[in-house]
Amino acid sequence: MQYIGITHDGAAWVAALADSRVFPLATVQDFWADAAGWQEKALSLAAGALGSGSSLERGSVTEVPLVPASARVICVGLNYKAHAAEGSYKDQELPPYPTLFGRWTASLSVGNVPVPVPSGEAGLDWEGEVAAYIGQRVESADEATAAEAVFGYSTFNDLTARRAQKLTSQWTLGKNGDFSGPLGPLVSHDEAGDLREGLQVRTRVNGAEVQNGNTRDMIFSVPAIIALISQTFTLHPGDVIATGTPEGVGYVRTPPWLLQPGDTVEVEIDTLGTLTTPVGGPSLRARA
Amino acid sequence: MQYIGITHDGAAWVAALADSRVFPLATVQDFWADAAGWQEKALSLAAGALGSGSSLERGSVTEVPLVPASARVICVGLNYKAHAAEGSYKDQELPPYPTLFGRWTASLSVGNVPVPVPSGEAGLDWEGEVAAYIGQRVESADEATAAEAVFGYSTFNDLTARRAQKLTSQWTLGKNGDFSGPLGPLVSHDEAGDLREGLQVRTRVNGAEVQNGNTRDMIFSVPAIIALISQTFTLHPGDVIATGTPEGVGYVRTPPWLLQPGDTVEVEIDTLGTLTTPVGGPSLRARA
Repeated sequence: MQYIGITHDGAAWVAALADSRVFPLATVQDFWADAAGWQEKALSLAAGALGSGSSLERGSVTEVPLVPASARVICVGLNYKAHAAEGSYKDQELPPYPTLFGRWTASLSVGNVPVPVPSGEAGLDWEGEVAAYIGQRVESADEATAAEAVFGYSTFNDLTARRAQKLTSQWTLGKNGDFSGPLGPLVSHDEAGDLREGLQVRTRVNGAEVQNGNTRDMIFSVPAIIALISQTFTLHPGDVIATGTPEGVGYVRTPPWLLQPGDTVEVEIDTLGTLTTPVGGPSLRARA
Repeated sequence: MQYIGITHDGAAWVAALADSRVFPLATVQDFWADAAGWQEKALSLAAGALGSGSSLERGSVTEVPLVPASARVICVGLNYKAHAAEGSYKDQELPPYPTLFGRWTASLSVGNVPVPVPSGEAGLDWEGEVAAYIGQRVESADEATAAEAVFGYSTFNDLTARRAQKLTSQWTLGKNGDFSGPLGPLVSHDEAGDLREGLQVRTRVNGAEVQNGNTRDMIFSVPAIIALISQTFTLHPGDVIATGTPEGVGYVRTPPWLLQPGDTVEVEIDTLGTLTTPVGGPSLRARA
């Protein structure tokens, strides 16, 4: 089953998505309070009435991120060996732990929403990757329990303001630009497939391929990351793990290649679809 | 005027606080949509009817953080020279920019709520500091405009899981333990006074003073921090700047001194009051 967030009845809702039709299920809060229950309901709807129930045309709805405002977006840096070996980290050994940094939900967006290059930046860098969604509470879990807590996956583009990211040792500022974290539709784990078996992650800029990696090359698996985090803080339904980007980002190239207003960046991942983001100028920040 | 968050009518509300009585004003969302307007209303209530209107005894309410779930808690590391010179950073020059890292609101708490030491940590470290609250939208502001956006201040304790903080280059994991970010009552800027003129920040563990600094020794002022952030992302009402801790944290001592279950830590700041936090064991995480 696939899900998107929509504005519905004046609130943010989660809706099932099938054949470009949208079936509102519950408010974001209510959905994540029982994600497994809503999945069962959506599956039985799909088996019978998804085509006949009360539905909306996808083109007629306003899409929004489908996670609660309180959700944590925990991003993993340097999770592919070839990416860890490019750029500023090439002379360092691979870290024994996943490098975790944070996005606030205020930085999230969805497909086809233009993202501004902040003034002062030479452009935005792309980081195509898989986002994993937590479906149930996780406290001090082992990897097997952590694996069961994954509700599904989506495409994600961790669009980065490199100047701000590199001002100090901490990356937070450059990872939270307005609208800079577009999420694609959530695909439940049964349909998404196993990241360890390998999903191809491709990023294109104006049609030219700039990243082509595979999730089987992740250094830290999603269950390992979740288990580690859960030793320190308790994960809640709707929290997101951004699993890291493969090699091929723009700032390490000679000369550096960063997204400019007018560019379009796409992230395409097997079974998860294609996430398209137009890039614009700083004036787009007026909507943030 | 002073404000606290409370659970009221099944939702999180902001309430005025006067003489241990609590006057519910609006839901957290509605309060921050017009913080200046609610401040005027609260002041006129205080001038006339604060003692006679519909109020609650402070001891009878459940207090909660008074910021929206979507708020960003942007923390400044190494913002006092003497703290930057202690610990792992003593051999580095002072950074030319504030070192910014993030907390999610899920890690926030209030006074008198026990905070667990996660299993695997040798204890929790204290970091008494001032939190500043954003009262209006800030995009690409200069320092003068940024200064006007500050609605008020509170005590804050940035309780830190040092083992998790130091696993990799990024501090996020160790800065987001369950219940590890208690906030005191918000004091509006007119009552709080000017951080540049100096508020004394004192931290005590079981009554023994461990930190005694003054906000006039901050390297980066609150307006400078806000102005810098606003170049990259847009601040919203209810966002929080945790302004950094002075010298005297525990992990740099010989031997290291970390908070243990049974300890009590207090942060006392001129005009902002005293924030008291009992420390407990990992079993407290069951409530997170």
